Amino acid sequence: MSAAGAEGSRSIDAGSYRVIIDTGLRHDYAAMIVAAAPAHHYVVITDDTVGAQYAEPLVVALARHGRVSSERVPAGEAHKTRDSWARLTDSMLATGCGRDTTVIALGGGVVGDLAGFVAATYMRGVPVVQCPTSLLAMIDASVGGKTGVDTAAGKNLVGAFHPPAVVLIDVETLATLPPAHRRAGLAEAIKHGVIADADYFERIGAEVSDLLEVRPAATVELVVRSVEIKSAVVRADPRERGLRRTLNFGHTLGHALEHVSGYSLLHGEAVAIGMVLEARLAERIGIAASGTAKRIEALLRRAELPVEPPRSLSPEAVLEATRRDKKASKGAVTYSLPAGIGTMAGEERDWSIEVGDALVREVLA
Amino acid sequence: MSAAGAEGSRSIDAGSYRVIIDTGLRHDYAAMIVAAAPAHHYVVITDDTVGAQYAEPLVVALARHGRVSSERVPAGEAHKTRDSWARLTDSMLATGCGRDTTVIALGGGVVGDLAGFVAATYMRGVPVVQCPTSLLAMIDASVGGKTGVDTAAGKNLVGAFHPPAVVLIDVETLATLPPAHRRAGLAEAIKHGVIADADYFERIGAEVSDLLEVRPAATVELVVRSVEIKSAVVRADPRERGLRRTLNFGHTLGHALEHVSGYSLLHGEAVAIGMVLEARLAERIGIAASGTAKRIEALLRRAELPVEPPRSLSPEAVLEATRRDKKASKGAVTYSLPAGIGTMAGEERDWSIEVGDALVREVLA
Repeated sequence: MSAAGAEGSRSIDAGSYRVIIDTGLRHDYAAMIVAAAPAHHYVVITDDTVGAQYAEPLVVALARHGRVSSERVPAGEAHKTRDSWARLTDSMLATGCGRDTTVIALGGGVVGDLAGFVAATYMRGVPVVQCPTSLLAMIDASVGGKTGVDTAAGKNLVGAFHPPAVVLIDVETLATLPPAHRRAGLAEAIKHGVIADADYFERIGAEVSDLLEVRPAATVELVVRSVEIKSAVVRADPRERGLRRTLNFGHTLGHALEHVSGYSLLHGEAVAIGMVLEARLAERIGIAASGTAKRIEALLRRAELPVEPPRSLSPEAVLEATRRDKKASKGAVTYSLPAGIGTMAGEERDWSIEVGDALVREVLA
Repeated sequence: MSAAGAEGSRSIDAGSYRVIIDTGLRHDYAAMIVAAAPAHHYVVITDDTVGAQYAEPLVVALARHGRVSSERVPAGEAHKTRDSWARLTDSMLATGCGRDTTVIALGGGVVGDLAGFVAATYMRGVPVVQCPTSLLAMIDASVGGKTGVDTAAGKNLVGAFHPPAVVLIDVETLATLPPAHRRAGLAEAIKHGVIADADYFERIGAEVSDLLEVRPAATVELVVRSVEIKSAVVRADPRERGLRRTLNFGHTLGHALEHVSGYSLLHGEAVAIGMVLEARLAERIGIAASGTAKRIEALLRRAELPVEPPRSLSPEAVLEATRRDKKASKGAVTYSLPAGIGTMAGEERDWSIEVGDALVREVLA
């Protein structure tokens, strides 16, 4: 697509689509959606919180280009379910949406994953445009085409790869994001530094107070660099057969902690704790440089993120939850582990390292 | 894959996978599944009827190659639902199936579509092997990668494209298929003749009694030719952007009739009626050679298939149901129509022809 109305915007190649980043970009969303995924019917899927702030102007602007309907889900991970997916689908069917429909995901990671899965499966697939409004969704969830919902057994266990037609990021929408969610998003940015770019890791440290206050200049640069790192990985390995697994650093234990906490931990908070624990695992196995875990822990603390599991969570329950992880293979739980800040280990094992339960118990204790 | 244990079998290129056809092929299923989609865990999904006949030997044979579990759904279109999909998924999660799982769909079109959708969405996609046991599934549903489930609003409205790793067809399994289902399968074979091969259309007419009795030689040739025709179309247009739409001949009205009948019409029966009505539409519009509808009707009658809508179905309800068809575009209902036996019309319109309600009412009356 041409970056209609987006002069001066940053545009990153994510493979079959682009990620456009700017301050105030939301005023151009409609034109850019129509350019990237023209349709007869546009369906804006959002949640109650984001919808109240940003849905109305988008719906009005899209109405100049076609039929528009708007769907809302209650905010929160608890609603990223098959039931929400079925309800949204049925509502689109009742509205008469055909195959010539474009879905717009306006919200955080929950909305992006859920609306993406609706689009992936609606009449065997209609286009989706991702308009992420949380830091986590901007730098992680909206890029890479993963969509899905949670089940009682765990997160994202049901889903599909469904790359968006375009990703539109207005960093101004972060101004209304609660501080805990800003911090949670920073956890994934720090992860990008660990897996691929030591300078970036240092820069986040130097600018952490600007970033926590979402000052525009620093925030745009953060989103741009994180999207560059993630896009490069996803372009090289869209289906997570190898390199893409490096993005799972912190996530084997992170997902398990999040699940066992009953989602009282935010995803980014759980990943923060997961990164510290998994970096310690990597040091104990002898594949990470000594001090790696400490450096990660120090930066996470400066970003006001948690670095150890809540005492209320049973280590055995967390261990058990890892066994149901999607990354489990041949019955063994695997990890993506760092060799140091900026470099991941295990290329010769497809970036997927088995770790025995005993060691995991040690770091969880 | 190599056609392990399948010397003398017919093998057809369907794009990213092959379709293997033979009598008695089921005795080689396990080896061929393991060759095409090796996994840690094999899940055989079948229905009560087919499962009772064919599941046990397959499960025993697969158990030599990995963990095996077996899942059953009640037979019939009424069970091709999101609920069945969720139940199968949850059962696989409870069994501890990871990403290194291969799903085997052993049954008719319902099992193939449902198990295919389970595989398409399980942890964002695991391989599926299609082992169709009904004529309809052999020559149509199992080839082309369409998977999905029905909703209250209509058939296959939720689903995904998920090509199988391989399709394994043992025509001997047709011996236990009820006669009405044999006839229903022939409707799709006749459709293949209409859309692409006048000689094949004639040959079905010449051998119709052998085919209704599923004599092996004639049946293998029928399955081979139909799979060749369907595979060629699907290879050229996997995502149904153009040419693949020709396979929808008879299906706009067919799906509507099937839905309004409450699925008391078998899919092939509904398609038989749909082909006669849509051929008449094509003649009235002036795009089909005169007599096309009559020739199709005569062959369908010889195959003991219905050729007119049950009187109990309201034409208005059928018309209304077409509006919710996936093929509807910009609010208009579109049809794939023949120019004559062996040739489809409308290439310049991407094989998708709008027809006004008034004409559809006439042919439904």
